[in-house]
Amino acid sequence: MNDNGFKILINKSMRVLIVGLGLMGGSYARALKRLGFTVTAISRRQETINYALENGIIDAGSVTPDPRLIGDADLVVFGLYPKVFVKWIEDYQQYFKSGVIITDVTGVKGSVVYRVQEMLRPDAEYIAAHPMAGREVYGVENSTEKMFYGANFIVVPTAKNTHGAIELCKDLGAALGFARISVLSPEEHDEIIGFVSQLTHCIAVSLMTCCDNKRLVDYTGDSFRDLTRIAQINDAMWSELFAMNKKALLKEMDAFLEEFTAFRNMLENDDTEGMRAKMRLSTERRAWFNKK
Amino acid sequence: MNDNGFKILINKSMRVLIVGLGLMGGSYARALKRLGFTVTAISRRQETINYALENGIIDAGSVTPDPRLIGDADLVVFGLYPKVFVKWIEDYQQYFKSGVIITDVTGVKGSVVYRVQEMLRPDAEYIAAHPMAGREVYGVENSTEKMFYGANFIVVPTAKNTHGAIELCKDLGAALGFARISVLSPEEHDEIIGFVSQLTHCIAVSLMTCCDNKRLVDYTGDSFRDLTRIAQINDAMWSELFAMNKKALLKEMDAFLEEFTAFRNMLENDDTEGMRAKMRLSTERRAWFNKK
Repeated sequence: MNDNGFKILINKSMRVLIVGLGLMGGSYARALKRLGFTVTAISRRQETINYALENGIIDAGSVTPDPRLIGDADLVVFGLYPKVFVKWIEDYQQYFKSGVIITDVTGVKGSVVYRVQEMLRPDAEYIAAHPMAGREVYGVENSTEKMFYGANFIVVPTAKNTHGAIELCKDLGAALGFARISVLSPEEHDEIIGFVSQLTHCIAVSLMTCCDNKRLVDYTGDSFRDLTRIAQINDAMWSELFAMNKKALLKEMDAFLEEFTAFRNMLENDDTEGMRAKMRLSTERRAWFNKK
Repeated sequence: MNDNGFKILINKSMRVLIVGLGLMGGSYARALKRLGFTVTAISRRQETINYALENGIIDAGSVTPDPRLIGDADLVVFGLYPKVFVKWIEDYQQYFKSGVIITDVTGVKGSVVYRVQEMLRPDAEYIAAHPMAGREVYGVENSTEKMFYGANFIVVPTAKNTHGAIELCKDLGAALGFARISVLSPEEHDEIIGFVSQLTHCIAVSLMTCCDNKRLVDYTGDSFRDLTRIAQINDAMWSELFAMNKKALLKEMDAFLEEFTAFRNMLENDDTEGMRAKMRLSTERRAWFNKK
């Protein structure tokens, strides 16, 4: 339906439905509303819908999967936990308008994208995306478009996706204000996220739990604070994300364990030259990541 | 000499000699000069001395251990690597003025403090200190007092130290602008530093070296950047600090390894509840470290 030779670009006449109006869904809603889109939302808690209506973040909303709201939408953005997202599609896709485009914000892709595309109605298209932004707080009340500025937006298509939907999704990322839009396969995405995001969260959590360090508060510099900022973590969401990317994450954890153990053994064996070589390599590599 | 019942406080009539005018020594010099002290320096490179003189950071300086400069000083601050510091005392303490107080900025204490106090002339006193501040750049050119604001200053006395010298050193930390002044034994210091500083550097280095991650630059969020900032590391200095705190650091590395491995195994065994309990503990503990 979208490969008729015309590039489908996101435009303000599209009606956007956000399902799951949390920190991320709320930030999408704010950005799209400001751009002039008609934005509606379905979210579990009445307080969320009320807050969003009162603050002009959405035009209409419901705490139930209202068939009218769903059927009116040209674009549906899912801001749900992975398993809830899959279940929602199963239960309510019957209400979608024919030709709808759906997208998401899920932090794992391999275990979600193929399954949803498999079960989805043939007259709907799901183009996966991962907005790599976040805060250590939750809920629509804390949502803000600023979260997207300077951040990465990854579009994660499969062979089932049309050129038009991929372009529309890239356009959406740009419209939201993301600094860099990339395209990755679900497998590439999960491997990279396993390293840059999930492994780092596992390290931060382990560093906080490996000793009772309350007495250390007075002796802590910025290094330790920086390293453990992400140890304040939403346990329900992250445990689900880890479990759904188990294979890739275990591979990254094992690579890190091996490297850390090697460094530990160099220290034990007084291999100063070995430690220095590792430090020179880390210094060289880290320089690539300095913000330009 | 200092335990005559009077509190020796740092005062501007004291002549301060900085030995090793790098990032830390240079920052001490700037702060003390601004406060009105007479500040001199001995440092290896003529460019360093010239720069410091031209920029009004010191009043006089030498690239050699000038007996006159050394003999004039009431307070000597050592900004050297640990081993060079110990060797310097051995070679040049003959030139100290009787009654001199010496202090340092060394990041390890157990393997330095007792040795220096042991060999030091009986008419001199060494009170150890660790200014917990730093930057990812080096040299007097990058030195700045701002580095000290909001940071921790640890005074590390032994049974050999007088009350007067301990108070003077605490006073010095306060005068430099440090936010929090604490007193720890060399053993407590090394254990805490092994955890909050050295372990975190080992983790950051291993995270950078465990995979060839240049291609990941485009997909990196702030979490990864925060976690690896300290992976840009002075290999000569840090390998020496690690080696000189080997026992304490190995203990901390092993505790972290055990914890990280346990978390890895929970993931492998689909123990979601176990992972969630660790995450809740890390969230609770990390909250202690949020800056007030």
